[in-house]
Amino acid sequence: MAGRPRVVIVGGGFGGLAAAKALAHAPVDVLLVDRTNHHLFQPLLYQVATAGLAPGDIAAPIRQILRAQKNATVMMAEATGVDAGARELLVQVPERGEVRLAYDFLVLATGVAQSYFGRDDFARFAPGLKTLEHATSVRARILGAFERAETLERPAARRDLLTVVLVGAGPTGVEMAGAIAELARATLAEDFRRVDPKSARVVLVEAGPRVLPTFHESLAAKVHARLERMGVEIRVGRPVEQIDERGVVVDGERIEAGVVLWTAGVKPSPAAAWLGAATDRAGRVSVEPDLSVPGRPEIFVVGDVAAKLQEGAPLPGVAQVAIQGGRYVGRTIARRVAGRPAPPPFRYRDKGNLAVVGRNYAVLERGRLRLSGWLAWLLWATIHIGYLAEFNNKLLVFTQWVWSYFTWQRGSRLILGRH
Amino acid sequence: MAGRPRVVIVGGGFGGLAAAKALAHAPVDVLLVDRTNHHLFQPLLYQVATAGLAPGDIAAPIRQILRAQKNATVMMAEATGVDAGARELLVQVPERGEVRLAYDFLVLATGVAQSYFGRDDFARFAPGLKTLEHATSVRARILGAFERAETLERPAARRDLLTVVLVGAGPTGVEMAGAIAELARATLAEDFRRVDPKSARVVLVEAGPRVLPTFHESLAAKVHARLERMGVEIRVGRPVEQIDERGVVVDGERIEAGVVLWTAGVKPSPAAAWLGAATDRAGRVSVEPDLSVPGRPEIFVVGDVAAKLQEGAPLPGVAQVAIQGGRYVGRTIARRVAGRPAPPPFRYRDKGNLAVVGRNYAVLERGRLRLSGWLAWLLWATIHIGYLAEFNNKLLVFTQWVWSYFTWQRGSRLILGRH
Repeated sequence: MAGRPRVVIVGGGFGGLAAAKALAHAPVDVLLVDRTNHHLFQPLLYQVATAGLAPGDIAAPIRQILRAQKNATVMMAEATGVDAGARELLVQVPERGEVRLAYDFLVLATGVAQSYFGRDDFARFAPGLKTLEHATSVRARILGAFERAETLERPAARRDLLTVVLVGAGPTGVEMAGAIAELARATLAEDFRRVDPKSARVVLVEAGPRVLPTFHESLAAKVHARLERMGVEIRVGRPVEQIDERGVVVDGERIEAGVVLWTAGVKPSPAAAWLGAATDRAGRVSVEPDLSVPGRPEIFVVGDVAAKLQEGAPLPGVAQVAIQGGRYVGRTIARRVAGRPAPPPFRYRDKGNLAVVGRNYAVLERGRLRLSGWLAWLLWATIHIGYLAEFNNKLLVFTQWVWSYFTWQRGSRLILGRH
Repeated sequence: MAGRPRVVIVGGGFGGLAAAKALAHAPVDVLLVDRTNHHLFQPLLYQVATAGLAPGDIAAPIRQILRAQKNATVMMAEATGVDAGARELLVQVPERGEVRLAYDFLVLATGVAQSYFGRDDFARFAPGLKTLEHATSVRARILGAFERAETLERPAARRDLLTVVLVGAGPTGVEMAGAIAELARATLAEDFRRVDPKSARVVLVEAGPRVLPTFHESLAAKVHARLERMGVEIRVGRPVEQIDERGVVVDGERIEAGVVLWTAGVKPSPAAAWLGAATDRAGRVSVEPDLSVPGRPEIFVVGDVAAKLQEGAPLPGVAQVAIQGGRYVGRTIARRVAGRPAPPPFRYRDKGNLAVVGRNYAVLERGRLRLSGWLAWLLWATIHIGYLAEFNNKLLVFTQWVWSYFTWQRGSRLILGRH
């Protein structure tokens, strides 16, 4: 294998995997580095957090996904820096300390973490939703609040515990609100003797002027109305000022809450710092039209951590941007290795936007097409099962969903870990 | 509901649940207390530890199991003692501290924990297999050893990491050995580039003279031979003298190992200490023929934590003893409340013993019937699916098993938590 160009990819999310797969037939050696052993299907993470799916249903070992791609090697290790001059990626390996991995091409697909806009002290009380550990911890908090409420005598104390505040009304906040409302009103309805789960409060707080800011106004209004019909209290244009053990302060109003979740913002991983590269105001790496780093044509940045403008607007942080970017970069590298001319600049093709609100209701927009209701929900379910297919998880999710749909039950109501 | 006799049950395992269900139609109020929110189907725990099943597949919320039983209330709390004079159970409740729960009848079904025979310092290096947290931690250790080995250059270091030592060759040790051998030889075979998973060593160590000491000698010999054909190294009659970060010392021989598991012994939970009751040498509560505590006819002890002799031999710590004991106690309480005469003494009816060794092979004995091979394996699978049925988990496990059987894959290969 000596002499074959070496492509090192950091991150086994949508972008990194797409890049690796696009190189399947290229005469290169691919090394994919991730700090976890699994690819996570993030669009369904909210279902793990609300006990609908199990962690294993939406995650698959990266090396299992790439097992048949013989030019690809997978390494579970934490990337910590780039020595761009020496063309080496720095990683921490458990038994060996820092190891340098030489590359001819480097693809950074390291994604984003939750951002608390400088209030990192909020993180303790209001976890985000970016990893499986987040999801199982959120699940334990929600189910644990009901369990603790059942042991309390005073109705007021029970009511405080059974208040869930969701900070941020993007797709994740909206999907969480719908799922928690359903969990309380249907799934848990008969399971308690002292607590009435139906009395649980779900409060969705958004600093901006409306829910689903990236969707068309008419769809956002429909989702707003749908959530209110499900009993969700919505506060838009109201910033969160304080979060502590007992609840939140929203625009001067104190809300006692047993569970607070934070999906209000993201910050890019430190790829830009590794490169010493220019960034946009959000900290994402500014890239060339071919997604390479200015002055470093052998380094590419894809997905949420890249700042790429198209028609003057930055590309959104969604799975499709990462998938298409990863695939483009993989093909670009393959062409360069083959001595073929560079491809035209990367162009994102918008496949549309989807958000789901409980069962039987979703909103979908694609170009001028706007759809809401049951048909959009069916499309949502079909598309997600379809994308899961390549990760071997289709059968399990489908079984769970069909079972849940008819029984109103949720199959993964575990409280694990310390309590 | 005032005035109805109050039955408090501690433990939502096989024994506690059976007692609660046997009281479904009795004019009593049942309160079931458990420190977790779920009933755990322990016989399949080794499959979670070896990535075959997900935690949620073999666990169901206790309150979901009892949702339709209107005289039953479930409380998630940690029992800490019994005030037998006042007829009160002491529990720790998160928001309220110590709470006293009055009872007219008390059923203790608190089970056992792993015992290290005085060497509790081993626990850090060699976890047991009694809870879901154990199982996911063992899973992370096994999969993590392969991941770390893939990053190492030296073949000897890789070989040490890829050695799994199982201490204790009862059913759990035997089942783990078979499952890990299969995981390495089949499931992971194609997934690594540097490591050859087939070269992984599985060493089964037993201080006693043979594997499966509770089974007939002829079946134990068959299982021994089967495991050896699968590549498992077996050391019987060899006590473990030392366990540390790097491996074990067995009868003077040092074995470097990346993973060590302990299933060599159990110790009863502290129910005896709560009661100040007499125990057998293992610390289990000595009970009357009706499973009540001597001098305390209103307190019953069932399952692994009870010391009950039958034909001179103590009953084994298996699910069937707990289920039959719990059901007997529930019926006894119902009769007493109804003013009917006491039932005849508890008598365990042996439904047989089963152990499984990888796919297609199990051993079964029931009275004089002894069976080994594929038919026993099919019976094993059928019986386990059947028992899971009442916990709503049948469909998921069945789907997983059929999928795994034909693909040789395992659906739950996640490394979660700190690494």
